Amino acid sequence: MKILVLHGPNLNLLGTREPDLYGRETLKDINGALATLAGELGVSVECRQSNIEGELVTWIQEAAGHYQGLVMNPAAYTHTSVALRDAVVAVGIPFIEVHLSNIHTRENFRRRSYLASVAVGQISGFGVNSYLLGLRAVVAVLGQKPDR
Amino acid sequence: MKILVLHGPNLNLLGTREPDLYGRETLKDINGALATLAGELGVSVECRQSNIEGELVTWIQEAAGHYQGLVMNPAAYTHTSVALRDAVVAVGIPFIEVHLSNIHTRENFRRRSYLASVAVGQISGFGVNSYLLGLRAVVAVLGQKPDR
Amino acid sequence: MKILVLHGPNLNLLGTREPDLYGRETLKDINGALATLAGELGVSVECRQSNIEGELVTWIQEAAGHYQGLVMNPAAYTHTSVALRDAVVAVGIPFIEVHLSNIHTRENFRRRSYLASVAVGQISGFGVNSYLLGLRAVVAVLGQKPDR
Amino acid sequence: MKILVLHGPNLNLLGTREPDLYGRETLKDINGALATLAGELGVSVECRQSNIEGELVTWIQEAAGHYQGLVMNPAAYTHTSVALRDAVVAVGIPFIEVHLSNIHTRENFRRRSYLASVAVGQISGFGVNSYLLGLRAVVAVLGQKPDR
Amino acid sequence: MKILVLHGPNLNLLGTREPDLYGRETLKDINGALATLAGELGVSVECRQSNIEGELVTWIQEAAGHYQGLVMNPAAYTHTSVALRDAVVAVGIPFIEVHLSNIHTRENFRRRSYLASVAVGQISGFGVNSYLLGLRAVVAVLGQKPDR
Amino acid sequence: MKILVLHGPNLNLLGTREPDLYGRETLKDINGALATLAGELGVSVECRQSNIEGELVTWIQEAAGHYQGLVMNPAAYTHTSVALRDAVVAVGIPFIEVHLSNIHTRENFRRRSYLASVAVGQISGFGVNSYLLGLRAVVAVLGQKPDR
Amino acid sequence: MKILVLHGPNLNLLGTREPDLYGRETLKDINGALATLAGELGVSVECRQSNIEGELVTWIQEAAGHYQGLVMNPAAYTHTSVALRDAVVAVGIPFIEVHLSNIHTRENFRRRSYLASVAVGQISGFGVNSYLLGLRAVVAVLGQKPDR
Amino acid sequence: MKILVLHGPNLNLLGTREPDLYGRETLKDINGALATLAGELGVSVECRQSNIEGELVTWIQEAAGHYQGLVMNPAAYTHTSVALRDAVVAVGIPFIEVHLSNIHTRENFRRRSYLASVAVGQISGFGVNSYLLGLRAVVAVLGQKPDR
Amino acid sequence: MKILVLHGPNLNLLGTREPDLYGRETLKDINGALATLAGELGVSVECRQSNIEGELVTWIQEAAGHYQGLVMNPAAYTHTSVALRDAVVAVGIPFIEVHLSNIHTRENFRRRSYLASVAVGQISGFGVNSYLLGLRAVVAVLGQKPDR
Amino acid sequence: MKILVLHGPNLNLLGTREPDLYGRETLKDINGALATLAGELGVSVECRQSNIEGELVTWIQEAAGHYQGLVMNPAAYTHTSVALRDAVVAVGIPFIEVHLSNIHTRENFRRRSYLASVAVGQISGFGVNSYLLGLRAVVAVLGQKPDR
Amino acid sequence: MKILVLHGPNLNLLGTREPDLYGRETLKDINGALATLAGELGVSVECRQSNIEGELVTWIQEAAGHYQGLVMNPAAYTHTSVALRDAVVAVGIPFIEVHLSNIHTRENFRRRSYLASVAVGQISGFGVNSYLLGLRAVVAVLGQKPDR
Amino acid sequence: MKILVLHGPNLNLLGTREPDLYGRETLKDINGALATLAGELGVSVECRQSNIEGELVTWIQEAAGHYQGLVMNPAAYTHTSVALRDAVVAVGIPFIEVHLSNIHTRENFRRRSYLASVAVGQISGFGVNSYLLGLRAVVAVLGQKPDR
Repeated sequence: MKILVLHGPNLNLLGTREPDLYGRETLKDINGALATLAGELGVSVECRQSNIEGELVTWIQEAAGHYQGLVMNPAAYTHTSVALRDAVVAVGIPFIEVHLSNIHTRENFRRRSYLASVAVGQISGFGVNSYLLGLRAVVAVLGQKPDR
Repeated sequence: MKILVLHGPNLNLLGTREPDLYGRETLKDINGALATLAGELGVSVECRQSNIEGELVTWIQEAAGHYQGLVMNPAAYTHTSVALRDAVVAVGIPFIEVHLSNIHTRENFRRRSYLASVAVGQISGFGVNSYLLGLRAVVAVLGQKPDR
Repeated sequence: MKILVLHGPNLNLLGTREPDLYGRETLKDINGALATLAGELGVSVECRQSNIEGELVTWIQEAAGHYQGLVMNPAAYTHTSVALRDAVVAVGIPFIEVHLSNIHTRENFRRRSYLASVAVGQISGFGVNSYLLGLRAVVAVLGQKPDR
Repeated sequence: MKILVLHGPNLNLLGTREPDLYGRETLKDINGALATLAGELGVSVECRQSNIEGELVTWIQEAAGHYQGLVMNPAAYTHTSVALRDAVVAVGIPFIEVHLSNIHTRENFRRRSYLASVAVGQISGFGVNSYLLGLRAVVAVLGQKPDR
Repeated sequence: MKILVLHGPNLNLLGTREPDLYGRETLKDINGALATLAGELGVSVECRQSNIEGELVTWIQEAAGHYQGLVMNPAAYTHTSVALRDAVVAVGIPFIEVHLSNIHTRENFRRRSYLASVAVGQISGFGVNSYLLGLRAVVAVLGQKPDR
Repeated sequence: MKILVLHGPNLNLLGTREPDLYGRETLKDINGALATLAGELGVSVECRQSNIEGELVTWIQEAAGHYQGLVMNPAAYTHTSVALRDAVVAVGIPFIEVHLSNIHTRENFRRRSYLASVAVGQISGFGVNSYLLGLRAVVAVLGQKPDR
Repeated sequence: MKILVLHGPNLNLLGTREPDLYGRETLKDINGALATLAGELGVSVECRQSNIEGELVTWIQEAAGHYQGLVMNPAAYTHTSVALRDAVVAVGIPFIEVHLSNIHTRENFRRRSYLASVAVGQISGFGVNSYLLGLRAVVAVLGQKPDR
Repeated sequence: MKILVLHGPNLNLLGTREPDLYGRETLKDINGALATLAGELGVSVECRQSNIEGELVTWIQEAAGHYQGLVMNPAAYTHTSVALRDAVVAVGIPFIEVHLSNIHTRENFRRRSYLASVAVGQISGFGVNSYLLGLRAVVAVLGQKPDR
Repeated sequence: MKILVLHGPNLNLLGTREPDLYGRETLKDINGALATLAGELGVSVECRQSNIEGELVTWIQEAAGHYQGLVMNPAAYTHTSVALRDAVVAVGIPFIEVHLSNIHTRENFRRRSYLASVAVGQISGFGVNSYLLGLRAVVAVLGQKPDR
Repeated sequence: MKILVLHGPNLNLLGTREPDLYGRETLKDINGALATLAGELGVSVECRQSNIEGELVTWIQEAAGHYQGLVMNPAAYTHTSVALRDAVVAVGIPFIEVHLSNIHTRENFRRRSYLASVAVGQISGFGVNSYLLGLRAVVAVLGQKPDR
Repeated sequence: MKILVLHGPNLNLLGTREPDLYGRETLKDINGALATLAGELGVSVECRQSNIEGELVTWIQEAAGHYQGLVMNPAAYTHTSVALRDAVVAVGIPFIEVHLSNIHTRENFRRRSYLASVAVGQISGFGVNSYLLGLRAVVAVLGQKPDR
Repeated sequence: MKILVLHGPNLNLLGTREPDLYGRETLKDINGALATLAGELGVSVECRQSNIEGELVTWIQEAAGHYQGLVMNPAAYTHTSVALRDAVVAVGIPFIEVHLSNIHTRENFRRRSYLASVAVGQISGFGVNSYLLGLRAVVAVLGQKPDR
């Protein structure tokens, strides 16, 4: 079972960008923690990051047939991208939306998510643990649909 | 380490109420699964349900000094209760908001949560797993703040 | 065939509270008129009143299996209670929403009903007759679904 | 005592138009049922239908002095006609607004009624029974004001 | 110089309809007063009333070439008719909007006028005098544009 | 295969009304061009115009059983008529909404269409070509559903 | 009978300020025309202008007992001054609101008038004639209430 | 003269809950200060607190005939309870709304008060002094209406 | 300890202006009552009134260094003046906002206060007592911050 | 005469993505049909697709001088891209906006188009025929402006 | 070339008022810096401040014919004054709007500027430099229109 | 001291695109003028343009450590890009937002800037001078924070 993990724009700066808000772990740290947990859960993960909306769209499109699940932190594109939403719907792979910070405590425009209503579920506010809980969640969801 | 788990109104009907939306597991099943996971994580859980907003408020107030963390599915009161919000802020125990269904795919009035912005984080859409992930999350949060 | 009639908050004051708006009949008068009409229609009615949202929720939950229909004047909770809505949906008994006064001639906040869209229908503006018409309506609805 | 019953636009198609939503009874069936009930209640009814807003306005104007009550299903004009509202206010005859379907479960624009706040009351969601309950309601209202 | 005066829906009831709000003068009284003033001003007036939106549209269309000015009290259609607006723009005759009552002291939906922004000007609140002032206004406007 | 073409209010003025916005072709020109194209496509067209909302409603109702498709430019009633919407839904004939001008470049109130969401599709901005493209579209739609 | 005519901010620039919008007549011209008409109508007028909101408030206050009617073009303060509204209500003299231009064809913020709902009526769009019609209107209003 | 003082949800935590916002005085301190001032003013006070909306409703209902005035800090229910509003209106006792903190400096949802428009007046922002000023206010109000 | 009391526009008319709403006491009466209470409390008061927003701004600015507290009824400027708000913030003297009437029972535009969120607190609805309670409040606030 | 046809994000998945909504034809099928029709109409077409907003912007910029018309289905970027709008305005080539599905029957956020008001016209709801009608439309538009 | 520099309400307090937000420079310092830069640029400046909206209006009116450009920090009146807007439009002198602080980081009501859309441009956020950049800007604008 | 100047989408067309709105200078002209002024001010500038949101994000990220200040005209992305906002916040370099045209005189959607509230300040409306004033501004800002 293969899981695709996508990181949206500016997440490549993690650890240096606003550490009080996003924590001190780097994207490499998060990817490492995900790989470790994936090993424990008996699945494999592939992690990628892009600042370009259209590149994320293409990666989601290409996931069809290669990955069974998608964990994505769309970051800023959560609030502005209909294209990502359409891509997720088009490929039909279970998708878990994760956020490092609690988006409900931030600016009003971060309350609108174009992706939440096409996700299986949403996890926000736990820093790197949001990703790890998201990986557990997608594995559980896929476990309930073994022959998909 | 003791965790209080609170279930809001109508959750006592779980398993019989709209099973297509909320799943077929009963509240007893969920409480059992939480107890089992708590055992694995080395913590204890206490689970309670009420249909009365003010009773939930009182239980949250009484948690101070007896519980280190709070996992709550406020159900319908998520969208209408400022009193629950005030109680959570008053006792100052880390609070994780969980929902069985993905609230972003439902009626518009379920998009407003009086509680989300005073929670550490929010997990929604994974059925009984929302509770289990919530328990893992609160334990992780408390682990990061050992001497609180 | 048994019908549950629920009266929401402050309806215990009927006859004394704002008689120009709500009429001079007491709740006992209304319950009496309902029992009389029920006798004529060959059904039985059980009438209860509560000021506590959660108690009304519990009564609706307990109706499953004991009552075939629900006539409720949710009063103030019409406009603020998602919990009552969830309870009505959960038990799946046909529900008729009634109001003594015409809610469209009053304050703006009384225009929003969390319950109307989960009711079979709504009757408002006829004083005690709203209840009596509601009882006729639920009997007619149940007559159309004899083997439910 | 004479009651005018008015049917708004497209109600002449009843029984053929969206039967899942509006039922299989024709307008003739409804008018027949109204006449039967009117006989039982000792009143007479006159039923008319028009697709033209201005014609309905004129019929309401002409009711003054000839009819003691008005039961109207304004259909689509409920949501768009200030002229019907003004006509109802101008003639001063008690008016009951009825709807076949529960307007609260439909499109948002059907939530706005220009007529509800000038009606004695509103009955919606009971199919042909909405009319019959409306006839009972207007007779009861007029009974309370015998010497109007 | 010929002026067309159009009265919208329900204005045929003037003098009987809500006299506290609209005054006790009948439409015939108003038309008489207009004819008298027209004589003084050296112009002629033609007055018509209809309850049907489309009939008013047609009369406005037909005014082109026969009338030099239009004074209209669109009544209820002020707030709901784009068709009247389009007709006024299409014929290109100077149009004065008049209202018997001060529309700013009434229901909120009477604040929106589809016609005001295509009128030369608007006069409201003076009862029958609104029409007389409107006639003076259109004569003055036409006097300023003699060779239109 | 017979197609009904309906023109809404004020379209009888085409060619004289705001030619910069709507073009210099008359309604007769448009109907002629439609007849010519219909001949090429092997279908017949019937064209009618009315300024009265209720008359358009009646014509749509009567189309059932006589026409296989409907092309309509509802003009001003696009933005204000729920009755036309209900009629279109009631008769169940494929409906194409056309507009001469691009409604998105005009007043805000022209952005709301009660009809667009019950149409197969919408074509706007091409003058007389909007009708011709609409005729091609309805023929194509019907060709895809031969045994309807 | 004495009428107070007040001109709001920037009206002292009339004739030079945006003549395409406001016309080429100066404030002195308008005051002269008002005096002439006042003579014809057998009343006297006093005209004043101020750019200072509070000075206009004071003049309105001082009108009580000295003037029987008030014609005011509040200009920019129409849209921003609650103080002028309160002054008008406090003194209880019939007030006519006039505007040179048609405020419905201008910026959205000019649609809101704090004064319109406390005026007897409103006249807008006729240039200097708005004032003259306003003077006629206030005289007519006062004539209807001789012993106020 | 007897005054009922009601404290809404979470006020039992005063002194421990967010002391920077609400101060360090406990509810017992406040009740003591109220009793002392009541003695000085020659009235008696009865103080109660509840977390349950319906219990507060019942206490207000029961006040009729036993208390001449009501001072209430509805806390969180200020913003969500129509039932409390209805109870206050029903019993007809003068009601003073008090708040410890200045609600205008807090979250937006605290700006809406269902109770303010049925209160005699509102006092907010003075900590325990809000209650004491409220007691003075209700005594003054009752003094002006001695024989109510 | 010196307290500045400022009265906003139209308050110089008190006693004559809308006595049913604002009471029959004149501004001189209020100032007298304030002086008496000030004597009892051992402070001095200076009272001023202006209809001009900018004059009130200047008086607030000049209060710095001469007065320890400010009690102001901004009247109409409550709802429209950012300049008064900025002045209050600039001088940094504790400010109590008072209103004679309960602003929550009046027009919607009176619900917005530019000043409330920079006040220590707000008192409304008690007529002249609003001022007296405001004076008590500011003295209490200053007593709590002796060395400011 | 050369026409540029641009396909926005996710349209490369056509035929596999939500076939019930978008149809079973692939992008290659659409491009083939366009080429065939172009041949019949005597023009040439160039078709391109991109998931990247900025790439579409660049292609539109480069069209100036090489293409006479633009047919574009902006897909998800319809609702979120001001950059595409600015590009279309900048190059000044007639632009036709096309959509496969009827955007008025979908999510609310698809009702907003940043592009519609800078297009000549819009065609939506006809599947692949939307493109073919769009090609006919742009050819007709260009035919009317031969020497542009 | 003469430039008028106007400072709005409360700017006379600069240097003492909220120095963290507005800086420690006084109005005299700013005027001095402006004079120095004016000398370098070969123009002259006249600087004035007022707390009274109407006085600023009058100064703008009087600038016609005496000054070639206007730099104004309208301060609080930015958000509430239509009169200043009308004055700027009336005199037709190029106007540059400047603000000391970045208005986009402050309260929501500071986002609305009645003046921005009648300015040549707007500069905000640079403290005293906002004025100096504004002076450079107006000189550049005037340099581009030498014979105005 | 090195300053990064970024130009957003479509700015590569400057001089050809809507010259009445944006002026006739090309991007090369602007970059040249910036280099000249930079020389005078003793700083260096690097200028880049992209149509791709994600590329601009990456350039901002890479600026950390290489540039001391950022002047950016985000063009269309001003109104739609949260990703650019997040990038600016993440790198923590002083950012000046500039616009060629006065955005307050254009479409409503251009009033929303995701970037303005994270900028030091904003300059709009002066054509190429907006950039030059922006360069002066950033140099002044950096001069005030020499050891950042």
